[in-house]
Amino acid sequence: MAQKPSIPKGTRDFSPVEMLRRNYIFGIIRKIFSLYGYLPIETPAMENLSTLLGKYGEEGDRLIFRVLNSGNFLAGVTPSVLSAADTSSLTRQISEKGLRYDLTVPFARYVVQHRDEITFPFRRYQIQPVWRADRPQKGRYREFFQCDVDVIGSDSLLNEAELVRIIDRIFGELGINIVIKINNRKILAGIAEIAGAGERITDITVAIDKLEKIGRDGVRQELAGRGITPEVIARLEPVMDLSGSTEQKLTELRKVMAVSASGLKGIGEMEELAGHLAVEPVQAAVELDLSLARGLNYYTGTIIEVKAADLPFGSICGGGRYDDLTGIFGMPGVSGVGVSFGADRIYDVMMQLSLFPQQTGSSTQVLVINFGSGELPALMKVAGELRKAGIATELYPDPVKLKKQFAYADSCMIPLVVITGSNEIAAGQATVKNMKTGEQTAVPLPELPLFIKEIKNS
Amino acid sequence: MAQKPSIPKGTRDFSPVEMLRRNYIFGIIRKIFSLYGYLPIETPAMENLSTLLGKYGEEGDRLIFRVLNSGNFLAGVTPSVLSAADTSSLTRQISEKGLRYDLTVPFARYVVQHRDEITFPFRRYQIQPVWRADRPQKGRYREFFQCDVDVIGSDSLLNEAELVRIIDRIFGELGINIVIKINNRKILAGIAEIAGAGERITDITVAIDKLEKIGRDGVRQELAGRGITPEVIARLEPVMDLSGSTEQKLTELRKVMAVSASGLKGIGEMEELAGHLAVEPVQAAVELDLSLARGLNYYTGTIIEVKAADLPFGSICGGGRYDDLTGIFGMPGVSGVGVSFGADRIYDVMMQLSLFPQQTGSSTQVLVINFGSGELPALMKVAGELRKAGIATELYPDPVKLKKQFAYADSCMIPLVVITGSNEIAAGQATVKNMKTGEQTAVPLPELPLFIKEIKNS
Repeated sequence: MAQKPSIPKGTRDFSPVEMLRRNYIFGIIRKIFSLYGYLPIETPAMENLSTLLGKYGEEGDRLIFRVLNSGNFLAGVTPSVLSAADTSSLTRQISEKGLRYDLTVPFARYVVQHRDEITFPFRRYQIQPVWRADRPQKGRYREFFQCDVDVIGSDSLLNEAELVRIIDRIFGELGINIVIKINNRKILAGIAEIAGAGERITDITVAIDKLEKIGRDGVRQELAGRGITPEVIARLEPVMDLSGSTEQKLTELRKVMAVSASGLKGIGEMEELAGHLAVEPVQAAVELDLSLARGLNYYTGTIIEVKAADLPFGSICGGGRYDDLTGIFGMPGVSGVGVSFGADRIYDVMMQLSLFPQQTGSSTQVLVINFGSGELPALMKVAGELRKAGIATELYPDPVKLKKQFAYADSCMIPLVVITGSNEIAAGQATVKNMKTGEQTAVPLPELPLFIKEIKNS
Repeated sequence: MAQKPSIPKGTRDFSPVEMLRRNYIFGIIRKIFSLYGYLPIETPAMENLSTLLGKYGEEGDRLIFRVLNSGNFLAGVTPSVLSAADTSSLTRQISEKGLRYDLTVPFARYVVQHRDEITFPFRRYQIQPVWRADRPQKGRYREFFQCDVDVIGSDSLLNEAELVRIIDRIFGELGINIVIKINNRKILAGIAEIAGAGERITDITVAIDKLEKIGRDGVRQELAGRGITPEVIARLEPVMDLSGSTEQKLTELRKVMAVSASGLKGIGEMEELAGHLAVEPVQAAVELDLSLARGLNYYTGTIIEVKAADLPFGSICGGGRYDDLTGIFGMPGVSGVGVSFGADRIYDVMMQLSLFPQQTGSSTQVLVINFGSGELPALMKVAGELRKAGIATELYPDPVKLKKQFAYADSCMIPLVVITGSNEIAAGQATVKNMKTGEQTAVPLPELPLFIKEIKNS
């Protein structure tokens, strides 16, 4: 009993200050998603294991939190499984549900399950926590939030263009300078193809992915180490040589790719997307990055990744086009595209760059000092009038020493204190103390709400 | 694969329309909570079982969803436990975490764990899902949302008065007529005491609780059935006889309770609360209900319950004062009071009474028709201008037949369609179609955002 209670490792409590900052991020994300016609859905925290397993690779399966069947879960277990202490067989027999591992698979499940109620193209966003039994470390949690926005049932590259605009606007409003890197799975396939090693796309892209980090020689060694022949490596040189603007790179690539139908298609898509984006330029830097190779086992076209320009952080947002997400649940041939915003990383970036506005310290604007039972009816009316005017107001509940009440306002970051003692009440006014500047102003009671609204808006 | 995927029983997906309605409820609840100076916190979905177990009674313990330890969870299991197929011992050895069962225990855990960072009185609200392995039935789910608002670290009855005002304002804004029933645990203790059966408070209150349902004779039989002696029952008669206004009931009770210190204290608290509420009357009916006996094992003072006046629903909100919530985690003597809003029941009430405003059909205001690549740059600009004006706008991503695009707007409940074909573009205007009235209006392009904003606000 005396031991302080704790929470499971890798999970977090969010204090009021943290919540206000998080809600600031979520609020902007939600606002921009809606502005582009996306609508919210939510799915349950628990999914059937049959929905989750086999979708994230072997490692992913291991990281899914499993929920024990309720009741006497051992009743149906095969005795031999129990006596053999066979963990993996036993798991299957005592657990049917798991916690959501991401928002993509539940979204695919949702679309297939509700296909008859959905009007396609279906534009949805989803902001919910996901759980992974990963080893916790700095910046990596076992419970964290994803903000996914997808449109499914449309091939149009207009969707990609809009997602880039959504990314641009969200990070613009948050005040984070970003670089939006774009690639296309079809170009990656083309590169492997022209090198005469189409089946080695993963090895080749993983190696090229390290270009920035380990340089050209490093990539050559990496390729050789992965068993790529010198001839193939030689044919990849022109790709590693590419430089200049996205336009210049695409022109150059078009020459190199002349013999790859897939590569040319990818270049065509990149050009169409660039054309859509040129109609109204975005603020952020958008660049073709051939080394971008995320999600190769599900993305089929455009690949998008966003990095903070001013910090050596990893990806803070990413996504791409998938041509067969719902195929895993028996509904093939529906193309979609989407991106996911990493709320926790965005939070960390904003903290490091001090980008949160000051108001996110507290949502409460005013503390009304409690002078005790004599003044209480008048004080309740003062607080009531402020609330009627939409001002978040707290009346200190106990008539304790003034010093304690002021310390409370200070510690809770409440910006204004209203002092209405018996003298003020008799004079029909209140004293408003600005906790930041220390300034005190006497204000006639009927003008109090307006006075405070003006401070709030200034 | 061909089988449609599904979700665990008792859980739900929320479609866009349901989400918009739910967010409407949550939005009002959040707004009023903040207006009264409450701040949000969140706690993890998973808590250590040591935090959860033993807090909800035996039945509650059984209803907690347990999460399997990750990795090879059988490694540390005692062989004898395994061979005996001893479910309850095995559970303890293979599972250390459970899903949150309510928001109250996690809140108590939060307060104790973070006591050094918290400034008391601590006013927090928390809106999160909870999970219970209950048998699912109509209106009862295994995953559902609670909206809790509590202040801890203050004895003042001003808090109770403010919670009643918060209840009044939230249901007022939602348009639900309510009755707020109030009782006090100390009065219940007084009743049992004056009847000479203080230790039988639970049996007595459970029986009196049924007064409305089974009448006075029924209650007498119920009391007798629970082994309450005829003498005690006779002494309870005056309590069952009480009628009239809350004031009249309190005056009458004060006479009956003259010998019970606890009872008099309870009456005093009720009177003080009524006094606070009289300063500015609330809209809802507030009544003393001696039969209200919820949460007897944790509430120590005021007990509150809210019912919808126009429907025979159960409680849609309830709570009370607890003098020792954090005592279970080793931090005794901190008094608090709070109420919990049942979002799912509130949703059901509002659906049945058709209380949702029409706008909650879609958050998207405008669909811009896609006429194909020739018009696309102009259409993208039209959509862009509308979004700059804060109007949620969707440009249909594919240049399919007009009929299909209109059917989409209709099915998605998007109220306005903007038609900007090549003729309109040449004339520098757009045709706006109101999907509800069928009315079409030609509007010069520069005036389009203002025109639509005016429709939206009308």
